[in-house]
Amino acid sequence: MEPKKQPQTLVEIERWDLPSDSSNLSVLPPFLQKNPSNASSYWQDEITVQKDILSSNKNALIPQHFIKAGPRKVLRKNPDETVACILTCGGLCPGLNTCVYNIYHTLKHFYKVKTVYGVTHGYLGLTDSKYWIELNETNIYDKFNQPGTFLQTSRGKRDMPTIVKNLVNNSVNSVFVIGGEGSHAGALAISKELAKENIKVSVAAIPKTIDNDIPVIDQSFGHQTSVDVALTAIHNVYSEVQSIDCCLGIVKLMGRDTGHITVNASLAFGRVDVVLIPEMTFELDGPNGLLEHMVHLLTTQKKVVLVVAEGAAKGMKGSVLKDEGKDQSGNTKFGDIGLFLKNSINSYCKAKNDDRLSELNIKYIDPSYMLRATVPNSYDRRMCFDLTTDSVHGMMAGFNNFSTGIVNGKSVYIPLKMICETIRKDVDLNGESFSRVLQMTQQPNFIN
Amino acid sequence: MEPKKQPQTLVEIERWDLPSDSSNLSVLPPFLQKNPSNASSYWQDEITVQKDILSSNKNALIPQHFIKAGPRKVLRKNPDETVACILTCGGLCPGLNTCVYNIYHTLKHFYKVKTVYGVTHGYLGLTDSKYWIELNETNIYDKFNQPGTFLQTSRGKRDMPTIVKNLVNNSVNSVFVIGGEGSHAGALAISKELAKENIKVSVAAIPKTIDNDIPVIDQSFGHQTSVDVALTAIHNVYSEVQSIDCCLGIVKLMGRDTGHITVNASLAFGRVDVVLIPEMTFELDGPNGLLEHMVHLLTTQKKVVLVVAEGAAKGMKGSVLKDEGKDQSGNTKFGDIGLFLKNSINSYCKAKNDDRLSELNIKYIDPSYMLRATVPNSYDRRMCFDLTTDSVHGMMAGFNNFSTGIVNGKSVYIPLKMICETIRKDVDLNGESFSRVLQMTQQPNFIN
Amino acid sequence: MEPKKQPQTLVEIERWDLPSDSSNLSVLPPFLQKNPSNASSYWQDEITVQKDILSSNKNALIPQHFIKAGPRKVLRKNPDETVACILTCGGLCPGLNTCVYNIYHTLKHFYKVKTVYGVTHGYLGLTDSKYWIELNETNIYDKFNQPGTFLQTSRGKRDMPTIVKNLVNNSVNSVFVIGGEGSHAGALAISKELAKENIKVSVAAIPKTIDNDIPVIDQSFGHQTSVDVALTAIHNVYSEVQSIDCCLGIVKLMGRDTGHITVNASLAFGRVDVVLIPEMTFELDGPNGLLEHMVHLLTTQKKVVLVVAEGAAKGMKGSVLKDEGKDQSGNTKFGDIGLFLKNSINSYCKAKNDDRLSELNIKYIDPSYMLRATVPNSYDRRMCFDLTTDSVHGMMAGFNNFSTGIVNGKSVYIPLKMICETIRKDVDLNGESFSRVLQMTQQPNFIN
Amino acid sequence: MEPKKQPQTLVEIERWDLPSDSSNLSVLPPFLQKNPSNASSYWQDEITVQKDILSSNKNALIPQHFIKAGPRKVLRKNPDETVACILTCGGLCPGLNTCVYNIYHTLKHFYKVKTVYGVTHGYLGLTDSKYWIELNETNIYDKFNQPGTFLQTSRGKRDMPTIVKNLVNNSVNSVFVIGGEGSHAGALAISKELAKENIKVSVAAIPKTIDNDIPVIDQSFGHQTSVDVALTAIHNVYSEVQSIDCCLGIVKLMGRDTGHITVNASLAFGRVDVVLIPEMTFELDGPNGLLEHMVHLLTTQKKVVLVVAEGAAKGMKGSVLKDEGKDQSGNTKFGDIGLFLKNSINSYCKAKNDDRLSELNIKYIDPSYMLRATVPNSYDRRMCFDLTTDSVHGMMAGFNNFSTGIVNGKSVYIPLKMICETIRKDVDLNGESFSRVLQMTQQPNFIN
Repeated sequence: MEPKKQPQTLVEIERWDLPSDSSNLSVLPPFLQKNPSNASSYWQDEITVQKDILSSNKNALIPQHFIKAGPRKVLRKNPDETVACILTCGGLCPGLNTCVYNIYHTLKHFYKVKTVYGVTHGYLGLTDSKYWIELNETNIYDKFNQPGTFLQTSRGKRDMPTIVKNLVNNSVNSVFVIGGEGSHAGALAISKELAKENIKVSVAAIPKTIDNDIPVIDQSFGHQTSVDVALTAIHNVYSEVQSIDCCLGIVKLMGRDTGHITVNASLAFGRVDVVLIPEMTFELDGPNGLLEHMVHLLTTQKKVVLVVAEGAAKGMKGSVLKDEGKDQSGNTKFGDIGLFLKNSINSYCKAKNDDRLSELNIKYIDPSYMLRATVPNSYDRRMCFDLTTDSVHGMMAGFNNFSTGIVNGKSVYIPLKMICETIRKDVDLNGESFSRVLQMTQQPNFIN
Repeated sequence: MEPKKQPQTLVEIERWDLPSDSSNLSVLPPFLQKNPSNASSYWQDEITVQKDILSSNKNALIPQHFIKAGPRKVLRKNPDETVACILTCGGLCPGLNTCVYNIYHTLKHFYKVKTVYGVTHGYLGLTDSKYWIELNETNIYDKFNQPGTFLQTSRGKRDMPTIVKNLVNNSVNSVFVIGGEGSHAGALAISKELAKENIKVSVAAIPKTIDNDIPVIDQSFGHQTSVDVALTAIHNVYSEVQSIDCCLGIVKLMGRDTGHITVNASLAFGRVDVVLIPEMTFELDGPNGLLEHMVHLLTTQKKVVLVVAEGAAKGMKGSVLKDEGKDQSGNTKFGDIGLFLKNSINSYCKAKNDDRLSELNIKYIDPSYMLRATVPNSYDRRMCFDLTTDSVHGMMAGFNNFSTGIVNGKSVYIPLKMICETIRKDVDLNGESFSRVLQMTQQPNFIN
Repeated sequence: MEPKKQPQTLVEIERWDLPSDSSNLSVLPPFLQKNPSNASSYWQDEITVQKDILSSNKNALIPQHFIKAGPRKVLRKNPDETVACILTCGGLCPGLNTCVYNIYHTLKHFYKVKTVYGVTHGYLGLTDSKYWIELNETNIYDKFNQPGTFLQTSRGKRDMPTIVKNLVNNSVNSVFVIGGEGSHAGALAISKELAKENIKVSVAAIPKTIDNDIPVIDQSFGHQTSVDVALTAIHNVYSEVQSIDCCLGIVKLMGRDTGHITVNASLAFGRVDVVLIPEMTFELDGPNGLLEHMVHLLTTQKKVVLVVAEGAAKGMKGSVLKDEGKDQSGNTKFGDIGLFLKNSINSYCKAKNDDRLSELNIKYIDPSYMLRATVPNSYDRRMCFDLTTDSVHGMMAGFNNFSTGIVNGKSVYIPLKMICETIRKDVDLNGESFSRVLQMTQQPNFIN
Repeated sequence: MEPKKQPQTLVEIERWDLPSDSSNLSVLPPFLQKNPSNASSYWQDEITVQKDILSSNKNALIPQHFIKAGPRKVLRKNPDETVACILTCGGLCPGLNTCVYNIYHTLKHFYKVKTVYGVTHGYLGLTDSKYWIELNETNIYDKFNQPGTFLQTSRGKRDMPTIVKNLVNNSVNSVFVIGGEGSHAGALAISKELAKENIKVSVAAIPKTIDNDIPVIDQSFGHQTSVDVALTAIHNVYSEVQSIDCCLGIVKLMGRDTGHITVNASLAFGRVDVVLIPEMTFELDGPNGLLEHMVHLLTTQKKVVLVVAEGAAKGMKGSVLKDEGKDQSGNTKFGDIGLFLKNSINSYCKAKNDDRLSELNIKYIDPSYMLRATVPNSYDRRMCFDLTTDSVHGMMAGFNNFSTGIVNGKSVYIPLKMICETIRKDVDLNGESFSRVLQMTQQPNFIN
């Protein structure tokens, strides 16, 4: 008997129609023409990737499927007529330059596209071509593993009609946005403005965040590199802690809203005693509070490592951070949670008048931007390669308003809208990673 | 209407029965007892992970499922009666010490197991307890990110009855083997000998290979770190190549039988011109041969990077490597493919008498063991944490003769037998990664 | 005519007399006996190293000379009767474990000394042998490039008679102290106590400080490694700064009293705009103050990097840091100068109401202990090798109460007393390094 | 009584006369004008650095002195009329791009020079301005820590009259050459041609070699970085060796003629058993030969590390390397000494039929160009900063035909001729570093 097709929900992607006169479209993309063994290395449109893979005997949800990303046999955009631009938005992330380089390289060398602009200053640059540089071998050949973004970036909202007019004036019909959720929303807004004006410009995005909080996808590029640096910082503090008799090491790691970096670096290290993340609720005081637990750890095992995400104050109940000045983004509610914990724990331990705590040392490390203003590792560079080449493949195959991400290890196309409308991916306090944290730390829940 | 359960094939794992008198088994493992929020962080036995996730409208195979790895609510082994030993086998791999540390730590601190032996010299050490050291905080606290294996390793077959007798004599009832396919076969052989003698000793393995050629699993620990180092070597040769006018850079990378390191490092770099791996067939001579392609590249683009896996000579047709002496494993058929290519390409280009090749420079880098005798990165250390803690969870929950690996990003239990009997995971020449290589290099198939 | 001997002042070192019965002393140290070419590789006692090497036509000071460190032909200590101990004191410094390993190895393998103790917890450990471990191949073989100190360390004064009694009780006659100026003072105190009691125990020290502020010597081990890490932090902030339009990057680096790390890392980077160190006096306010200069830089060049030593507040005039809590060493006078500058510059720029500053971003990095709790680089490991082996050579040759340091690139013996009594080596504001800083930054003197 | 001036020999540097009309020369260089504290930070011409600093009671040589490098108060070149060019020659060296960047930056920002050319392809580029690019902020801002040289390099002799004509045609009057001894000879040849034609063009050089074999100076930039990488390779092989029972690790390091990298990396590691360098003579066979020593080490200590410089075959007596093909520089006499030793030792040990050697493993690492095609560390970047800024200072102060190097830790000016005519700096077999090697290895002299 033939096996029955599984039921599934397909996440579809907008796509331009095949041109009525497709004679000027290659039967095969240029890079598939040379080598007979290449000729078959494209993906059928009907291949999909299943998202939900955990199952039990009891439930059987209809699994969601995404369209597999990759080259198609038939193009729906003519490379000869393609004029593309690339921009990088938001905060730095290891791999931004790798992405720009790879998009350029794929357009130029796989598809023989003639003109690729680098848009500087993020969305600001889209409003005026004075911010553009035409990318060529000379200005891009050594950028691929540099930290930062040589295109520069910016934050803030821009005027959509101005952007669309500027794209049209410069004959751009293909826009690549590398950015986070906000930038995906920007890309979607451009796309809506284009639709309103009935202008055929394709828009594609690549999800970027070191925080790893973009929904739908497994992991974004840059995150693993930031975990590498975070791991070094934890190892450094651990070395301090191991070298003195009664010592607490505190590491604060980036993550205003989510604790993925903190969780992943702590588990990679494997010897962290307390982990605090923004998703948690915790109390300082009381018999089950953090402070009493610190006293317990310091008096029993003497050498203690605490890793805290910068946004952990969000869930702190019953205590308030001293206002230590506002940062330039206007975030004033929470001061520096790392310094606050350092001072609070120190005062609390001193007040105990316990001989075992009399020589307490606290070592504090806050690597801050060192986590992101750095060179991408091989894991992230490989991901950048896959996502960017597949993004170009998707655009040349006629897909539109899509992002390219990794789902269960496979690259897939995801609607911009879906990225924008799905809630941020927090660390699931009931999920596997945080359970592993609780196993490792055996920390109480810090709630009285 | 209730959704229908998907059809699936479950890969089952041997498991000890629940003891008839389970009164001395904890209702909850020790590490789940402290914290109310921990109390629910165990896995139901019926949760499984689906392996096959690519689908199309046309086919609908019955997907294979693996049992999700992780802590169980009820133990089938008594921690008080557990005596464990750990060994590392075969070639070095970044993360071996991390694994030993984490297994020790999980047994001691999660389950309160009292005795954990480190067996030195791999399987040799299993034959005689004179090779054993009892692991404790002092001799293990700083080993977790050291390169190599402080337990040492060895190769070769050992006498199974001797091993079993030695285990029994030392009251060991839990064996953890960290090793590759050969070591999995060894673990299986021990387990068969135990069954023959009707001795209840649990055997668990962790798959280890930098080559990433162990079947069933996504990726083994250590591989990503080796790709980091390989990427550095490619970047180094690229820097040489970019600095001289007519220059070929060759990097040879570990991989006797499979090209995963070569493929993954080349794609991570993103600018490699030719890739040669053991899975490929290629010819040096003839109009479509490698040599003529090198001439083409060197005369047109002048700066060329070739990355070759050490075992690529396997598929070289029509040429034979000069015998350059045997290595100690007795592999005499193939000499050093990297040096051979360097010399062959040099002679061929010289013989062309082409002015454009008169100043040809060839830069050759062979990082060899630098890829594996190094400190694991955060990706591999995290994987080590997950696999080892889940391996201990599995053993304490009564599973037996199993390995713990990652399938579609989730840790699962896999029968030892399945690892041993599935063929080695080669780079699929029709698969996605190699297609990406062909896109990047646009190299011909080197067959006349 | 024979050249006349230059006049010079020799810095002498205490030395034990040749034993009246020297028959049980080797004619040659063990490691010089095997190899004929080794037989001549010892230093004559009269070889010295000149310290003052800059000269002009006008002045001709009598130059100071130090005794060249290294092996001597005749020993004044009997290796068979030597019992040694090693301790590490004060804050961490890259290379501490390298030093302990090398002293152990030189004693054991060069001189065949039988007993070498590792004293844990610094001077505290000297008071009681319960803190000692006997060093052997197994517990030391893999420590040589670990961060931290596996012997642990401590701060604070200890009772000298107790220490001397404990040394005598354990038959120790050779003490190696690795530490900074305070630890040198401790070593001198022990030595005075020993002299008072007329006990023949040799005392040697190795200067240790990442801050590079120990007088007499060129540079201490560990400093260069900390500059490597500091350079990375500056590069990171520079990458942030280059990626945004109007951006100030601030890096705070270790250095409570001296700015050597800040100066050396800034010059190594080569593109720093403002450097602030504890040796400088500077004002925030006024037309020539720091704040106005920041406005000038931010409005003209837009991308600015400032590097500040943690102790720079010492020389800040006219402003006071907010008290942000005391640290555990009781240093309350100055808060965090980095955060203070960040906030002050931000407020000042905001108050300007200058459009060019409206999108000012400030990126702050404080790598703190990451500079010192790390693995030593090759420069520092080489220095550790030279200093420790020469320290052992000196002790076996009968020198006493000496430290071993690098002067003009050569290892020499220096009296403990001289290290203790010479004032701390500050950054000379009229010296060459700081002149280079002023050339690079072209910063004003920040004094109104 | 006034101390008498010490006798000394001064190494003088050619210098242009003060212009008769010096009115268009600044009284102070631009960068000394802004800041009062800068105004005194220049060097008097009569300040010198003494080279010979080791002395004894017996001898008193007249010490050699070099002119201290650094800024002068009065310029002898007019910045407004200065047109400079920079080239990089010979093999790669970490720091080449740092040097180019710093020379550019010093000319532009310290002296306000308007035109600075980057000459690509080394001396070839000097023959024709088609190879030149005008350096500006955009094309140079991110090059300073890149590996390789973005100006590219070349080898081989060029026609001097063509070069001089080309310089004149492009109004260049200041040439900066970054290169080794051969490039210094080239610079000297240009300078002679200029003198013959009576053309006033200044020529300056910066010594560059990872091998550290340039005479007169302490150490060249790039060398320390290569030792960092070499140290990693030795640590890698050591990790292999420690993980197996009977194992020899061999590392081959760059150094065709000199063993400085090998010596410095081995001492930095501190646990190398055998060191072989080109300056040594050694025999393989015979009772005192290398092979018998290897058997001794492998049978007694079982774990052995050998580090060999690539040119060590020069001094090998009584054996000949198998001809393993010629390399492109035509060096055919010696094959690969590393592979040769690996094979020879393996065969010799096998032939012993000694049970203790039956499982001998040999691990071979040859990092080759990884030592030089890499990013400079902080030590080398600081040295690049000092040498390049002082080179520009020297040229603007009217010095000519000079190189800038470090002598006893101080930057000095050295005549090009002196660098060219002094013999190469070999490892002195009777010197201190090699004595340290013999102490560490206790290896015999390998001569029967």
